Amino acid sequence: MSRKLEKITPRDEDFAQWYTDIVVNADLISYGPVKGTMIFKPYGYAIWENIQKYLDQKFKELKVTNVYFPLLIPKSLFDKEKEHIEGFSPEIATVTKVGDKKLEEELYIRPTSEVLFGTFFAKEIQGYRDLPLLYNQWVNVLRWEKTTRPFLRTSEFLWQEGHTIHANAQEAKDFTLKILDVYSKFAEEALLLPVIRGQKTEREKFAGALETYTIESLMYDGQALQCGTSHYFGQNFAKPFDIKFSNQDNQLEYAYSTSWGVSTRTIGAIIMTHGDDHGLVLPPMIAPTQIMIVPVKNDETLLTVAEQIKKQLGDFRVAIDESEKSFGYKLANAEIKGIPVRIEIGPRDLEQESVTITRRDTFEKVQVKIPEVLPTINKLFTEISANLFNRALVNRQQRTIKVNTYEEYKEILKQKNALFLVPFCGAIACENIIKEETQTVSRCIPFDIFQDVSGQCFRCDNPAQYLVYFARAY
Amino acid sequence: MSRKLEKITPRDEDFAQWYTDIVVNADLISYGPVKGTMIFKPYGYAIWENIQKYLDQKFKELKVTNVYFPLLIPKSLFDKEKEHIEGFSPEIATVTKVGDKKLEEELYIRPTSEVLFGTFFAKEIQGYRDLPLLYNQWVNVLRWEKTTRPFLRTSEFLWQEGHTIHANAQEAKDFTLKILDVYSKFAEEALLLPVIRGQKTEREKFAGALETYTIESLMYDGQALQCGTSHYFGQNFAKPFDIKFSNQDNQLEYAYSTSWGVSTRTIGAIIMTHGDDHGLVLPPMIAPTQIMIVPVKNDETLLTVAEQIKKQLGDFRVAIDESEKSFGYKLANAEIKGIPVRIEIGPRDLEQESVTITRRDTFEKVQVKIPEVLPTINKLFTEISANLFNRALVNRQQRTIKVNTYEEYKEILKQKNALFLVPFCGAIACENIIKEETQTVSRCIPFDIFQDVSGQCFRCDNPAQYLVYFARAY
Repeated sequence: MSRKLEKITPRDEDFAQWYTDIVVNADLISYGPVKGTMIFKPYGYAIWENIQKYLDQKFKELKVTNVYFPLLIPKSLFDKEKEHIEGFSPEIATVTKVGDKKLEEELYIRPTSEVLFGTFFAKEIQGYRDLPLLYNQWVNVLRWEKTTRPFLRTSEFLWQEGHTIHANAQEAKDFTLKILDVYSKFAEEALLLPVIRGQKTEREKFAGALETYTIESLMYDGQALQCGTSHYFGQNFAKPFDIKFSNQDNQLEYAYSTSWGVSTRTIGAIIMTHGDDHGLVLPPMIAPTQIMIVPVKNDETLLTVAEQIKKQLGDFRVAIDESEKSFGYKLANAEIKGIPVRIEIGPRDLEQESVTITRRDTFEKVQVKIPEVLPTINKLFTEISANLFNRALVNRQQRTIKVNTYEEYKEILKQKNALFLVPFCGAIACENIIKEETQTVSRCIPFDIFQDVSGQCFRCDNPAQYLVYFARAY
Repeated sequence: MSRKLEKITPRDEDFAQWYTDIVVNADLISYGPVKGTMIFKPYGYAIWENIQKYLDQKFKELKVTNVYFPLLIPKSLFDKEKEHIEGFSPEIATVTKVGDKKLEEELYIRPTSEVLFGTFFAKEIQGYRDLPLLYNQWVNVLRWEKTTRPFLRTSEFLWQEGHTIHANAQEAKDFTLKILDVYSKFAEEALLLPVIRGQKTEREKFAGALETYTIESLMYDGQALQCGTSHYFGQNFAKPFDIKFSNQDNQLEYAYSTSWGVSTRTIGAIIMTHGDDHGLVLPPMIAPTQIMIVPVKNDETLLTVAEQIKKQLGDFRVAIDESEKSFGYKLANAEIKGIPVRIEIGPRDLEQESVTITRRDTFEKVQVKIPEVLPTINKLFTEISANLFNRALVNRQQRTIKVNTYEEYKEILKQKNALFLVPFCGAIACENIIKEETQTVSRCIPFDIFQDVSGQCFRCDNPAQYLVYFARAY
């Protein structure tokens, strides 16, 4: 590739520009011709493939099977669930003609597929023995966005959307939480993002859901990012779509449904949590290349050793940089692409039968004898994973502030981005005002905090319902 | 599932109805709410996933990397290559508004993505060292169809589309043929479809291509089906999209591009080639369940043995039917779903420490001692694969007819579907007449036949250019 490594804007100088520099320089994406769309280049797409592999296996362990539902949804079908259509209608790309011919009914490009699954479930199920149905699909969806940013907010994005249907409310609710568990482990184990698990407020829950559960993470700059959501619909979709089954008492009953999704936004979260002034920093578990071997020059002896080491590391994703580029370029390229570990091989190292291993997260170097490479890498990956996770956790902890008054809240916001834990009334109207005045939104009602709420809402005079996290958010 | 096993129309009585009965009864698909769209149910989608796994690995062995390009294409961009837009325009679903707002420029839903890759390549490459770029994407595409049939002709389908760009014509052409090799092996080894490799005539080649290569198979009813195509564009796309690079002589030169695709149509080919009056018959390599173990009843001893056998068959995709259904239903279900082999376990078998293994293709049964199950399955899969392939090959051979006159051609067509090998002039006008009068189309100019063509075109008086296969086709 003739791609030049451009200068990256320092992260603390201009975070937004730093982010843009990274996504382009690390060769993750290119911009598409339609505003707000992007092209996943091989390196960017490979991260998504690794995410898919991880999650797909976890879903299959829960007996979820993959399906594929159509891209287009007839307008009349989408309009059946009132809250749902209200939530999505301004963002929906609409097909009105084919060739020169106007269509009789407008067709929506799916922004999500609840209504298609609902229609299908209604035909598919008869008795309680048919339930549950646990489906997932890996697809593209469109939601038109005014301001867009690669991965974070794009008119088209890739995701998985799970849709399940159950014979009773408890089982359905339990399933949304099982999925939230899968998502939490995925975020913390694979992406090394510490997340807060919780429930969305009335204002922030999914259009049409009774309850929305979420995992929330905090980026380096102190803004929050939702990494995955799991929705419990109760019978909200079953009623307009007539999804009925004969229950154990032989009575017709509306079924209980859920949906849940993780999207390519998570790649944005990885970048904004772990990246630094040198480029991307990728978690070992989802890095397309986990180890880059860089011989000081492309001579036969060095390349032979490189191949031997690659063989030793057979279980990892290893590449050897044999390109015509200079040694310096190769090091910079491995850095900017966030490859967790690089191994340098030079003639002087070889005299001592050793190589130099450099961690991407701390740039610490260690010289090891060749037979020690594998155990060293295993140890380093554990250390790197722990370090990335902890670094992010410390950042979140340092930015987490418990406040009780709106004055204090606004004062702090003038100085920095923070994750606020506040007593909140839960009212949509109150939350609207907060958003308008401070551009912050509620993130979740956290599970893991003792909900000790006797006082008043931090903003209005009404009694507080629960402790809620608020923050600026992507 | 409460799904009932409906009667399947006999294949020789009404092939079209038989096909429809199979796709629904084998639980492959359900119809979508928009005409011509379909829902891939778990069993149907699992076949596609196996196809994806096979092909994706082969592509990666050729150093092709996966990417993802946007769904929507600005009209102005699509219109740049004249033949291309002429070929596709009547089928293109068009987005004209988002929410209530009319878009300034209409956006096409991709029927294929040459123009997006072209635009990207133009920006991406500078010198010959940047080449080749070998990309592939697994995506949905839309081509509006008047008459539709599940898998074979649907308004939306799933496929992979490969797009590559090269520094010289020979390398690009060689690559299209390398891919054709991958496709041939895939069809013959994984799908057990004997295919004819060849080149499309002027009339049948891809809109905008210089040369289109194809693999063609013949269905049980004697109609042909194109299973995969690989296109060489020369500089046809490089010119309108300005894809230039600096060559080894430091001259600017237009690049050479290819594209190639295999779609979910191939699932239709599997059904129509191997299926029988009892249902689907799946090739072992792509069957979602390769072996179904059916205990005569769900008692503990039988289920324990079933689990032991499943363990012994660890490398295969094995399921145990523990459902509440009757033994008879379970056998019929395994049959209709085309599971290559089923293992019945009953108390009488167990007294002799044996089980009964039944092949789906011939229904031959064999009683084997439990430790012999694994070697027996290995042997059976080889035999089943050979049998399915040969059965299809014999059908094709029996239907292949060499004719020299149009009279004979039309006479035979009155009696049956056939694969005709004919001397042909190659003219589009001549082919148009043949299609109009006989509803047959050219399939390909085959590679593997000595092109001994001294005489006249079988239809017109002009000199024949080559021997060409013609047939009715899906």
